[in-house]
Parts: sequence; C-alpha cells; structure tokens
Amino acid sequence: MVDPRTSVIDERLRKIGRIIAVSSGKGGVGKSLVATALALALARKGCKVGLFDLDFTSPSTHIILGVKDAQPKEEKGIVPPVVKGLEYMSLIYYSRDNATPLRGADVSNALIELLAVTRWSKLDFLVIDMPPGIGDAVLDLIRLVKRIEFLIVTTSSQLAFETVKKLVSLLKDLKVPIIGVVENMKMNRAKGIQQQTKKFGIAFLGEIPYDPKVEEAIGDETKLLNTALAQKIKEITMSNYIREGLYPQSA
Amino acid sequence: MVDPRTSVIDERLRKIGRIIAVSSGKGGVGKSLVATALALALARKGCKVGLFDLDFTSPSTHIILGVKDAQPKEEKGIVPPVVKGLEYMSLIYYSRDNATPLRGADVSNALIELLAVTRWSKLDFLVIDMPPGIGDAVLDLIRLVKRIEFLIVTTSSQLAFETVKKLVSLLKDLKVPIIGVVENMKMNRAKGIQQQTKKFGIAFLGEIPYDPKVEEAIGDETKLLNTALAQKIKEITMSNYIREGLYPQSA
Repeated sequence: MVDPRTSVIDERLRKIGRIIAVSSGKGGVGKSLVATALALALARKGCKVGLFDLDFTSPSTHIILGVKDAQPKEEKGIVPPVVKGLEYMSLIYYSRDNATPLRGADVSNALIELLAVTRWSKLDFLVIDMPPGIGDAVLDLIRLVKRIEFLIVTTSSQLAFETVKKLVSLLKDLKVPIIGVVENMKMNRAKGIQQQTKKFGIAFLGEIPYDPKVEEAIGDETKLLNTALAQKIKEITMSNYIREGLYPQSA
Repeated sequence: MVDPRTSVIDERLRKIGRIIAVSSGKGGVGKSLVATALALALARKGCKVGLFDLDFTSPSTHIILGVKDAQPKEEKGIVPPVVKGLEYMSLIYYSRDNATPLRGADVSNALIELLAVTRWSKLDFLVIDMPPGIGDAVLDLIRLVKRIEFLIVTTSSQLAFETVKKLVSLLKDLKVPIIGVVENMKMNRAKGIQQQTKKFGIAFLGEIPYDPKVEEAIGDETKLLNTALAQKIKEITMSNYIREGLYPQSA
C-alpha cells in the first residue's frame, strides 16, 4: 500500500522552485555549514528560501544560525518560523534536549511526518541539510521528494572522498540529479579531488579554503556571511549550476 | 524472546581483557584514525589486540591500515586475519564494492551476526571503531557487548561537542562506563572542550594537535605511528585510563 502521506508531500512541495539536498558521504565535512551559508546567500540575493534540517544524526543548523526562541506555528499543518530571513524548519523543534535517539523506523516516520505537515510558502529554493551517508533516511527522502537534487560536500581527505564515491554511485543508480561536488576545508593545492570528481562526470563546483573564522562565526549569520566559506558559496550561487537552474533534471 | 545469539556473543567476547569502543557524537572527527592508532600503539607495546570496524556508515580502518588482500577464515565461525599485528575484522569484508546501503534492521542484523560469528583469540584489548552518534547500531552494541567502555573523540568545534554532550548523556543514563574524551585536530590553545568535559565529570584524556602528516600516512601504519596523533595516543595508552585498567567499571 502506498503511504497516503506521499501524495501530501508532493502537494506540500509543489510550489517550490528547486529542492537542493546538501549531502555528504560522511559526517564532519562541513555539510551543515555549507547548507546554511547556501540558504543565507540565496536569500540575500532576494530569493525566497527555506532551510530544512533533516540531519537527525547531528542537527546543527539551529546552532549555526543562532536560533533562539523561534517556534513553528500550527495552522492546517506546521508553518515554519522565519529565522534570519529563511523559512526554517528542523527536527530539533521536536527533539530538543532529548538525548534518547529514535530507532530507525521512528526516524523514517519522523522525517516523513515532518515532510507531510510542513507548509512552506512559494519558495524559489528549499535547501535541505541531509543526514550524512546513505542510510535509510536518505533513501526515504529520495523516494519521497521527487525533484530532489544533490549538492555533495567533501573534504580533501581520501577517507571522506571514498564515501563520496559510494554516494555518487548510489545516486547514479537511482538516477537522482547531482548538481556537483564542493571541496571544503581545503588546506593545500592538491587537485586530486577535483580530478576524481570530473572523472565521474560530475561537476566540480569549487574549493572552499579552510577558514578558522568559521568556528567563531557559529551562531552569527552576519559573521558567517563574511567568511571565506560563504564567499565561495556566493560564487557558486552565481554559477549556472545553482542560479540559472540550467542543470538538466534528467541527467 | 531473547535472541539466542546474545549468549553466543558473551561467549565469544569472554576471553577479551578490555573492550574499548572508540566513539564520537558525529562523523569526521578522526574517530577511525584514533581507533586504529590506539590498536596499533597497544600492539606495539606487546599487548594482543583486535580491531573491529563496525562503523557501517563509513568504514575506513581498512583504508587507514592499508589492508590489501587479507580475508577472514571460516572455521567454526569466522577467524579474523592478522593485519599489521592486529586481529582485524570489518564489515567491509562482507560489503566490499557494494554501494547499496543496508536498511536499518539489516544493519543491526549484520552487526549482531558479525559479533556472534567472529572468533577472537585471548586478547588484551578489543578496539571497536563504532558508528558515529547514537543510532540503532550503537544501542545494539551497548546491549550486546556487556563490558563495553567508551572512549569519545571530538574536535574543538562547538558543533562536534554539542553531539558529544548527547552521547555522554545517553551513556550516563544507560550506566555505560566512559573512559574519557580526546580532543582531536586541535589548531588553537582554547581550553573550552577540556573544561566542559571535566564539568561533566568525565576524564579529559588529552589534546591531539592537527597534523597534516596524518593524511599522508593513510594506508601506511608505520608512518601513522610517527604522527603527532599517534604520539598522543601512545601517551594515553601509558596513562591509568587505558594501560592499567584502573577505570572503575561501575562508574
């Protein structure tokens, strides 16, 4: 039987221009920072943007944004609060201060529920901070969010890129569009990641230099937008990959 | 009904001195590198050591060790091969080159199966590279591995430490012993993590400076043992927390 919530999800996401899933092969590569900076950069350019934190493994966009007491409003569903110019929704609203983890099936249920109840406006972009890797929740999101496109974050480390290979291979098998790969926290000039990305036939979106100011900017979106990370993300939002929506959905 | 494999697991682990689960609140903090360096350092001191990679989200100890063609042997169970002086077992032996992820229940099953079939020798230490965070697999391991003790790896980042707080809180609730916290990839002199760790009543085991040589040492255990990371891990193995086994199990 088809989950009746899947058609509800289609309807909820219908009015959204592009749905960008910021993802990674493993944790700790700066995925949440890139997702937050991407959402903020697009909003500062005048786009209507939502940020949806579905990384149940370590939700952190609320810490990065410095979300204080914003709360979603119940009104024929859940209306996300506007935080720093973004419509902002996170699993954290429903799990705050709760250390006890959800079991796998409950995580899937919570994600599906949240997708089904959240009432976004007519957005240009919905940026999703994805769970890292390729677990159940990621497979569920691919299944349920029809127009999802992936932007993949890696570091220069071989260990991180090995996991990116697996993610890319899975997305290709499932015919899910990949916008491209960003290499984050770069500390040297090696071109290995860039070359390997291109060899996969995937766009290399750019290198983000390691910037110690990023850690100090956590909780302060204005500071964040002044980091080398945000600077690079702004460049990427101006590229065809993001801004113009030219990326072929059928790739 | 009790899973009959749980008593098998007790039997399999009975002859092992200490079982150290190297864990983290989130990915990307260097957990696998710390686990591998810890196992190697203990082995070089003359202990009998096993390394068990159960991080199904991004298994990487085989890459760090440079495991080539070692394979477990079937003999009344599965006998781990000896790799670089360690009895070495990984989920990777059974998932190699397979990008398709296991669904949650299958992951749990695979972990339990692997715990039940692996025949370790009489080891002084079994070091487990845990899945990051506090998902199903971690809960299963806590339930099934009675004498498990946690060594927690974090970076200096607030985002990483927020997830450590959750992990610590869960372990305390479940009365699981915590050996202590290691702060990895440290690039400054801030004492925030150390102070917060002590405030929790948890031992702070030390700071590992960021060392670019670690990336170059991936795949070469001799090089790895010469990094600043391994140097610090060696010091920790000499401390009471690890070497003497003085940590009270009932804490």
